[in-house]
Amino acid sequence: MPLTPEQQAEIDELRAGARPTLRAVSEGMEKHLYLPHQVLDHGFVRVIDYMGDDAAITQAARVSYGRGTKTVNTDEGLIRYLMRHWHSTPFEMCEVKFHVKLPVFVARQWIRHRTANVNEYSARYSILDREFYIPAPEHLSAQSATNRQGRGALLEGAEAARVLDILREDAMRSYDHYESMLSDDGQKGLARELARMNLPANIYTQWYWKVDLHNLFHFLRLRADAHAQYEIRAYAETMCRIVADWVPFAYSAFEDYRLGGMQLSAKGIAVLKRRLAGETVTEETSGMSKGEWREFESAWEA
Amino acid sequence: MPLTPEQQAEIDELRAGARPTLRAVSEGMEKHLYLPHQVLDHGFVRVIDYMGDDAAITQAARVSYGRGTKTVNTDEGLIRYLMRHWHSTPFEMCEVKFHVKLPVFVARQWIRHRTANVNEYSARYSILDREFYIPAPEHLSAQSATNRQGRGALLEGAEAARVLDILREDAMRSYDHYESMLSDDGQKGLARELARMNLPANIYTQWYWKVDLHNLFHFLRLRADAHAQYEIRAYAETMCRIVADWVPFAYSAFEDYRLGGMQLSAKGIAVLKRRLAGETVTEETSGMSKGEWREFESAWEA
Amino acid sequence: MPLTPEQQAEIDELRAGARPTLRAVSEGMEKHLYLPHQVLDHGFVRVIDYMGDDAAITQAARVSYGRGTKTVNTDEGLIRYLMRHWHSTPFEMCEVKFHVKLPVFVARQWIRHRTANVNEYSARYSILDREFYIPAPEHLSAQSATNRQGRGALLEGAEAARVLDILREDAMRSYDHYESMLSDDGQKGLARELARMNLPANIYTQWYWKVDLHNLFHFLRLRADAHAQYEIRAYAETMCRIVADWVPFAYSAFEDYRLGGMQLSAKGIAVLKRRLAGETVTEETSGMSKGEWREFESAWEA
Amino acid sequence: MPLTPEQQAEIDELRAGARPTLRAVSEGMEKHLYLPHQVLDHGFVRVIDYMGDDAAITQAARVSYGRGTKTVNTDEGLIRYLMRHWHSTPFEMCEVKFHVKLPVFVARQWIRHRTANVNEYSARYSILDREFYIPAPEHLSAQSATNRQGRGALLEGAEAARVLDILREDAMRSYDHYESMLSDDGQKGLARELARMNLPANIYTQWYWKVDLHNLFHFLRLRADAHAQYEIRAYAETMCRIVADWVPFAYSAFEDYRLGGMQLSAKGIAVLKRRLAGETVTEETSGMSKGEWREFESAWEA
Repeated sequence: MPLTPEQQAEIDELRAGARPTLRAVSEGMEKHLYLPHQVLDHGFVRVIDYMGDDAAITQAARVSYGRGTKTVNTDEGLIRYLMRHWHSTPFEMCEVKFHVKLPVFVARQWIRHRTANVNEYSARYSILDREFYIPAPEHLSAQSATNRQGRGALLEGAEAARVLDILREDAMRSYDHYESMLSDDGQKGLARELARMNLPANIYTQWYWKVDLHNLFHFLRLRADAHAQYEIRAYAETMCRIVADWVPFAYSAFEDYRLGGMQLSAKGIAVLKRRLAGETVTEETSGMSKGEWREFESAWEA
Repeated sequence: MPLTPEQQAEIDELRAGARPTLRAVSEGMEKHLYLPHQVLDHGFVRVIDYMGDDAAITQAARVSYGRGTKTVNTDEGLIRYLMRHWHSTPFEMCEVKFHVKLPVFVARQWIRHRTANVNEYSARYSILDREFYIPAPEHLSAQSATNRQGRGALLEGAEAARVLDILREDAMRSYDHYESMLSDDGQKGLARELARMNLPANIYTQWYWKVDLHNLFHFLRLRADAHAQYEIRAYAETMCRIVADWVPFAYSAFEDYRLGGMQLSAKGIAVLKRRLAGETVTEETSGMSKGEWREFESAWEA
Repeated sequence: MPLTPEQQAEIDELRAGARPTLRAVSEGMEKHLYLPHQVLDHGFVRVIDYMGDDAAITQAARVSYGRGTKTVNTDEGLIRYLMRHWHSTPFEMCEVKFHVKLPVFVARQWIRHRTANVNEYSARYSILDREFYIPAPEHLSAQSATNRQGRGALLEGAEAARVLDILREDAMRSYDHYESMLSDDGQKGLARELARMNLPANIYTQWYWKVDLHNLFHFLRLRADAHAQYEIRAYAETMCRIVADWVPFAYSAFEDYRLGGMQLSAKGIAVLKRRLAGETVTEETSGMSKGEWREFESAWEA
Repeated sequence: MPLTPEQQAEIDELRAGARPTLRAVSEGMEKHLYLPHQVLDHGFVRVIDYMGDDAAITQAARVSYGRGTKTVNTDEGLIRYLMRHWHSTPFEMCEVKFHVKLPVFVARQWIRHRTANVNEYSARYSILDREFYIPAPEHLSAQSATNRQGRGALLEGAEAARVLDILREDAMRSYDHYESMLSDDGQKGLARELARMNLPANIYTQWYWKVDLHNLFHFLRLRADAHAQYEIRAYAETMCRIVADWVPFAYSAFEDYRLGGMQLSAKGIAVLKRRLAGETVTEETSGMSKGEWREFESAWEA
């Protein structure tokens, strides 16, 4: 696990210090607070803080004076209704703050989601640790032959070993050189903001990332998807499990309507209606392009 | 005060229900939770939830594993440094959710601040209450003769009475007609989404408004300013007092560097440097336009 | 039509002044520039400026050095692929600026879309015109009995006349009082920022509204939808026609995948697959709630 | 220069194809369209498209029907007024789209500005070119002894040569290994999305970046500042020159009120007022902390 004893002691201290609050409390989320969930070889996700719970969503939707709920059932039904009808603002009323440790190439994909607050560890100001992501054998894949941005078969045996050796050796050499350029032992040490440029994209960085629940769901829908790169998906899936404990009704609606749902085009609706009416529809009579038809058929094959 | 007994009971129930949490707790903010602070004649601001405290700002700035603070002094110094140097992301790591009751014309100014989450009471879905903002005599001002978007002298006596009569009577008549158009007693009731169009801009609406501390400070700097319209300034000033209790170090830095600070232009810097060197500078030798010079002189007059 | 001769002359002058540019030009959009499209009784939408065309979308997707297109066919196929797979950033590379005149209650719905730039006519600074939205008879509807935020049957005869009389008379009286409070003829004129509070929500305001194509599509999907209030839908539908002329490939993909498309839940997918396999599925065996089932069935009824 | 003959031909073709438009045209910007301005050793900034000019700012501020300007003088005065009083929305009415080629570590700083649209070259989908940033000798600096995120003296002679050798050799070796892992000659080629992780942060990437003028000014104020890292400042300064040609009045106001301006704290104002009144103020009597005083004095020293 990636924590030093000092870091572990700081977390233990935080977990020991319960205090009374009048705010909404999610018991499911209190269990996660501060604890690192390991992701990849050296990364983690941990919850630093959160605001709101399932009831906070319906309370905002109703602009209530109090908790505003009559029964738990009503809350769940309203949350499902809001999700189904794309009401985004009530979900924005919950907020969560994560501390994430992640490889730089994952961070570069992640940061493309702009509706969030981020504070990243600064390599201008501080020195990065010697920690690099090296894929586990079951994730070391060849380029897909059919999907330009996908993976194909696993690399195995000598081929896998060779790639892993390259990644490990280049990482270590780059870091050795980073340290030796920084060193002011008998020389002028190179500025940190320059020396970092020698480090490869599998080095780990870390950040605090804060986001509202609506935008988190948007992130998770795209990044927990099968088409997302495995390495960021590993983070998204960990966060899915945390969110399910935090706001179980909202997460369940998200699973049903977004993660497990599907967008049909007007053409797709027409094909399904014709099929439901007993008609046989082929690519030629579908009105779809070759690519659309292939995707459509793979989604609806028996 | 604008609360019904049922609303008050809901608030009392929330204030009675302290629960343990492992999250950061701001004692100063716990005292405010749920309690309405009256603003204008029927409006209020109340805190529904918050995330973080002063320490959360420095913790994020350091990307810490624990609370990350050695001493309270260090925290304050770092917060002042971050504010002075326009580091916005650590302040984004605190979040607050308000329930606000406010006249529609104030809401229309407020919503121009886009970096916040809002859930407004829906007049398509529900019927608005009969509550209108009528200015107190000390705020009933004539148009300023010099500032096209400002106020001048107070209206007094018969002139004031006449304006207040118009505002009150038009509000009541509009609301009577709103109700009678909505009524389905012996007639088809007009759709709520249409009937509302008869209501004037001083009717009260309400919303949940959630914002991070950086963007809240930006809002407060513009809306607690002397140039802001009095009615929105009244809300901003109430929120300033709440924020001072929530994150005292950050608020104090905000007061010093933003609220009480001033932006100097390159020309303004040059004039001050010449004056500090003993030179007499006039409008003609300042390089400023007439308007800039007037504003500059009023800020620096003895 | 809502323009004065002076305004028309200004527009004519702009339409007369073609100049050479090296930028991407959309012929379909040049035809719309500056011309008001009437919406409702006194409102309009007109295009003030635009950036990009269909080719700019694919050019950005490819991070091209030149126009980057081999054939028009390829462009259309790529645009459809990007839309189908929720690639939003290439569509953000087109931008459009509208001048819109609209009733205040429509403006209040519209402004909830935050990812846009807005400059509204200021009633603190200037005096509003005497123009109010009065619904045409075919839009004067009763409250829906089944949908809390919808319309039902039309009001007719004396009932309709009564409502229209109220709306007209209250509007005129409010405006008369607005003018008389503002007047400084023999009295102190009330501050404009106060006097405006007497004006009802059907008065017209105007603004410049600038948005990128991705966020415009998001706006149009929600506001050109049958569930949107008629008055904002009228604006959205006008903008749809303009966008179809501006970026025909992108608009056609938007129509197919968004406007005419449908989001299926995991439960909905399961029901359809069972039906396609010949099974009879009822509300009881669908796993859906009553409300979900009703919506699902109305979408898929023969 | 970093362009291939094919790229240059594409740009020449675009520059040859002027077409008529009814939109606002900025002659100063037309001269820049598509042409690459070299930045660093292999990078560039080029303008792909723009919307608006100086007049578009005042036109939006006035919500005009036509160009809305009587005289050029009035336009300049209004633009200066808007900038001085922090009116941001009129400046948001201009938009610009750049194509930028830049090292990854610069891209990582740049992307922290969230209010912009970005389309980056995808290293999941495509193969990156063998181009790396190697600092020129006059930018190869040691770590600052006093500023944790700054540079100190230049490295010289053998020290400089050694660092440059490391940077060059590590870059070449990493790229050689990147290519050899990707190769499917007699082996399975590693997935592009994995192979890229071996590349250091000085490799060049490219993107389309689109932003409105207000947010561009915010970016430039922070990144053209003396405290910004040299490498991103080089891009910001190039963009400053382009913007000065595009919207000369707005840029001049920006230079005076932002780039060359200064934010004074309440304490700073008090010290200056005392000095202007003839008093001698020292650190002890200033009420400032040691750090604040040092910064204040360095700004105001004779």
